[in-house]
Amino acid sequence: VSYTALEQCFREIGHLDHALAMLGWDEAVMMPTGGGEARADALAALAAIRHERLVSPRVGDLLAATRPQALDDWQAANLREMQRAYRIATALESDLVAELARASTRCEQVWRTARAANDWEAVVTPLERVVQLTREKAQRLATARSCAPYDALLELYQPGISQATIAPIFDDLEGFLPPFLERVLEFQARLPRAGCEGQYPIARQAALGRELMTRLGFDFGRGRFDTSHHPFCGGQPDDVRLTTRYVESDFFPALMGTLHETGHALYEQGLPARYRGQPVGEAGGMAVHESQSLLIEMQVCRGRPFLRFAAPLIAQHLGVALPVDTLYRVATRVERGYIRVDADEVTYPLHVILRHRLEPALLAGSLAVRDLPEVWDVEMHRLLGLATRGNDRDGCMQDVHWFAGLIGYFPCYTLGALMAAQIFARIRAEVPDVETALAEGSLAPVLDWLRRHIHGRGRLVEGLDLIAAATGEPLGTAAFKAHLEARYLAA
Amino acid sequence: VSYTALEQCFREIGHLDHALAMLGWDEAVMMPTGGGEARADALAALAAIRHERLVSPRVGDLLAATRPQALDDWQAANLREMQRAYRIATALESDLVAELARASTRCEQVWRTARAANDWEAVVTPLERVVQLTREKAQRLATARSCAPYDALLELYQPGISQATIAPIFDDLEGFLPPFLERVLEFQARLPRAGCEGQYPIARQAALGRELMTRLGFDFGRGRFDTSHHPFCGGQPDDVRLTTRYVESDFFPALMGTLHETGHALYEQGLPARYRGQPVGEAGGMAVHESQSLLIEMQVCRGRPFLRFAAPLIAQHLGVALPVDTLYRVATRVERGYIRVDADEVTYPLHVILRHRLEPALLAGSLAVRDLPEVWDVEMHRLLGLATRGNDRDGCMQDVHWFAGLIGYFPCYTLGALMAAQIFARIRAEVPDVETALAEGSLAPVLDWLRRHIHGRGRLVEGLDLIAAATGEPLGTAAFKAHLEARYLAA
Repeated sequence: VSYTALEQCFREIGHLDHALAMLGWDEAVMMPTGGGEARADALAALAAIRHERLVSPRVGDLLAATRPQALDDWQAANLREMQRAYRIATALESDLVAELARASTRCEQVWRTARAANDWEAVVTPLERVVQLTREKAQRLATARSCAPYDALLELYQPGISQATIAPIFDDLEGFLPPFLERVLEFQARLPRAGCEGQYPIARQAALGRELMTRLGFDFGRGRFDTSHHPFCGGQPDDVRLTTRYVESDFFPALMGTLHETGHALYEQGLPARYRGQPVGEAGGMAVHESQSLLIEMQVCRGRPFLRFAAPLIAQHLGVALPVDTLYRVATRVERGYIRVDADEVTYPLHVILRHRLEPALLAGSLAVRDLPEVWDVEMHRLLGLATRGNDRDGCMQDVHWFAGLIGYFPCYTLGALMAAQIFARIRAEVPDVETALAEGSLAPVLDWLRRHIHGRGRLVEGLDLIAAATGEPLGTAAFKAHLEARYLAA
Repeated sequence: VSYTALEQCFREIGHLDHALAMLGWDEAVMMPTGGGEARADALAALAAIRHERLVSPRVGDLLAATRPQALDDWQAANLREMQRAYRIATALESDLVAELARASTRCEQVWRTARAANDWEAVVTPLERVVQLTREKAQRLATARSCAPYDALLELYQPGISQATIAPIFDDLEGFLPPFLERVLEFQARLPRAGCEGQYPIARQAALGRELMTRLGFDFGRGRFDTSHHPFCGGQPDDVRLTTRYVESDFFPALMGTLHETGHALYEQGLPARYRGQPVGEAGGMAVHESQSLLIEMQVCRGRPFLRFAAPLIAQHLGVALPVDTLYRVATRVERGYIRVDADEVTYPLHVILRHRLEPALLAGSLAVRDLPEVWDVEMHRLLGLATRGNDRDGCMQDVHWFAGLIGYFPCYTLGALMAAQIFARIRAEVPDVETALAEGSLAPVLDWLRRHIHGRGRLVEGLDLIAAATGEPLGTAAFKAHLEARYLAA
């Protein structure tokens, strides 16, 4: 009885999440600028109501009264996720939440202009405030859970991970990647330069994206495909709102962006329908989510079989007949660069490791905000062999995350890449003729496997356990390293 | 102090209205079909939260504690509208509201297929249920306000009107219109037949609509223009979402539909910014809203001066050079017809009067649902000289209103038409060279007057008082009749 009442409470919270997701999508994709102020107020009001419902004494009483022994596996997992959400929400006084929201909004606004002007000094004070408030938040969350403050933040983005899980994995990658990168750069230096610059009308690029999304299994009866300033995948499982952005001079960024978001979208569309609107019916965390986008983009779509299928469609929609070899070289080009979001899959983890080395120190206060540019430069030099002194715009100011109060998020990107490699290795081992199917444009065997082992399981188990159960081994670096070696060092 | 707290309470309700409006627009314009179930649940949850907030004891206590003597005119009017909203919301038990919502949804679903099949028998029972529940609702509302049940329903759509205000006006029109219609039909029978059928790509029609909206003063920084199955004007004053629908074979319906909705949109965009999200900052009721759409469509855009300005734009966008005379004859063609929504401005009030003659009897129970087709036929014959026996699809089944539980709404359409005529007559008397400005495509002098006398006043006074103050006389039929005579009987 108390469990059923809990489901009812969380169903209403799910309806509020629906409204928040759709209004957020609308803000990014449809809203005229004049609507911004009223929208911000409406979103804040809905978020406040959501919080009020979640921390209500009724939810607390029902959680205390519900015994998992009487529940089936799904219900017990749902209860666990309800308890997690309640613990996190009640750990933070609303004053702190409001103050952090104000400070982050303010800091992000300053950051926008300061980054463009390469003006580090302008962001130091607002960022110090955000870091200080995030430290308080982490301490409150850590006390409620009896864990370390940084681990408490990690949980917000990927339940079940901790510094103890990340450290050995990242140490391993940090040893492997720099010398591997050298070898790849040497190898690629001998290949002819390939590119696909040209003039590609946006409507044609969009039609190409739409066709590939459809072929990959995106259900347009339960989703849309639009344009926004930053690509994202929003909405709800039965109404997934995917966006991309275009440049006319090169179709490749929008194409890969669309395929990446399609990975997120397929995950959302595959979540268990029986638990719609319940915590256990949601995606398993940001690292797991990223694993699904990277699996589609990196493992599937940047591989030769899929590019073989895509080449004639590219020719048909865009009027350019590019050889598969050219597409493959463009899809797998590796370069040392300053910017994380522009990085290839070899250098990307180094960008993440850099940030992950600094985050806990920033949070603990052993690294002062003021010293970030210097430390960034040292780390960038060590990991990627690049100098960033005097170029903070492309250094420690490049990402919005910290300025927006997101500390503890970055590891998800690389954990997702490792998961994707491990999952795809397992799929190739278990499912016959995957590559043949992909070369014919069919993701069906892959998607079928993902539906059974990942998508359809929601939050039945925590992220790392989900991956371990699906792949038969704990998350590690072996599959990712094998993938990199096969893709980047073979002729 | 209590007044300020009330504004805070209603501000939150306004944020929920924002969410409901935007999600409703999205449902009609953007949402894939698969999202329908989750959206319906989310809208219902938000509406329930809105209701809960409105009827909360806190709002009741604050309303009881607030004395209008200490308030300025706007605050006092805001308090009056808060009290109205509270009285209406608390008059209805949530069981009745829920049951009526279910019965209406069910009845509307049955109506959709039954209307297509001309199957009156299928809708009798569900409509009887809706009428019965609406009767209970009207009785509850009437008790709370000490008025007649039908008047209680009228207030829901246009505060300040009653059967006593409507009766003499409609009696007058009923005496005037049938013989006038005869004269118009005779007059028009001597004119050459004009039409503008052709092939008009939708993208070009949309570009034409967009340009005319801009010229009329629609602010695209605070609104959008899209396509939906039924044209409507939704959203919020700083983010107005206007839609239209197109047929390729004739541009006129979409054009006039767009201009009609633009009238609604200009009203919304002109509401007093200082009272955004407060009841007093909202539009003054559905009749007043309709007056603004009809003023733009009927008084302005179907008149010769505006058509003179529009003709070259139509030629430019659609590639057809139609003489102004042709456009004017198309814009002013009068015909006896079965369907209200297709009616011209001469016959439209007769369709409304017919419905208004039946509504109170239906509500009181003196007219049985079962007898509707017969009575409809009698009235249709009397008012418009048409027979509808055996053709209920185009008779008493044509409008969704009653099937959806909307009894008391119809009078707003014709009251709006009368208001529009009276307002425009006043504008022409007060503002020099209105017609010259319109022929040059400038609505500025008209819009400026409307902003001052109608739009910017929100709900400061009730609808009929607003019109009386703006035009210098109580709402009557004289201006409307004079307008019809000038437009439809002059060469």
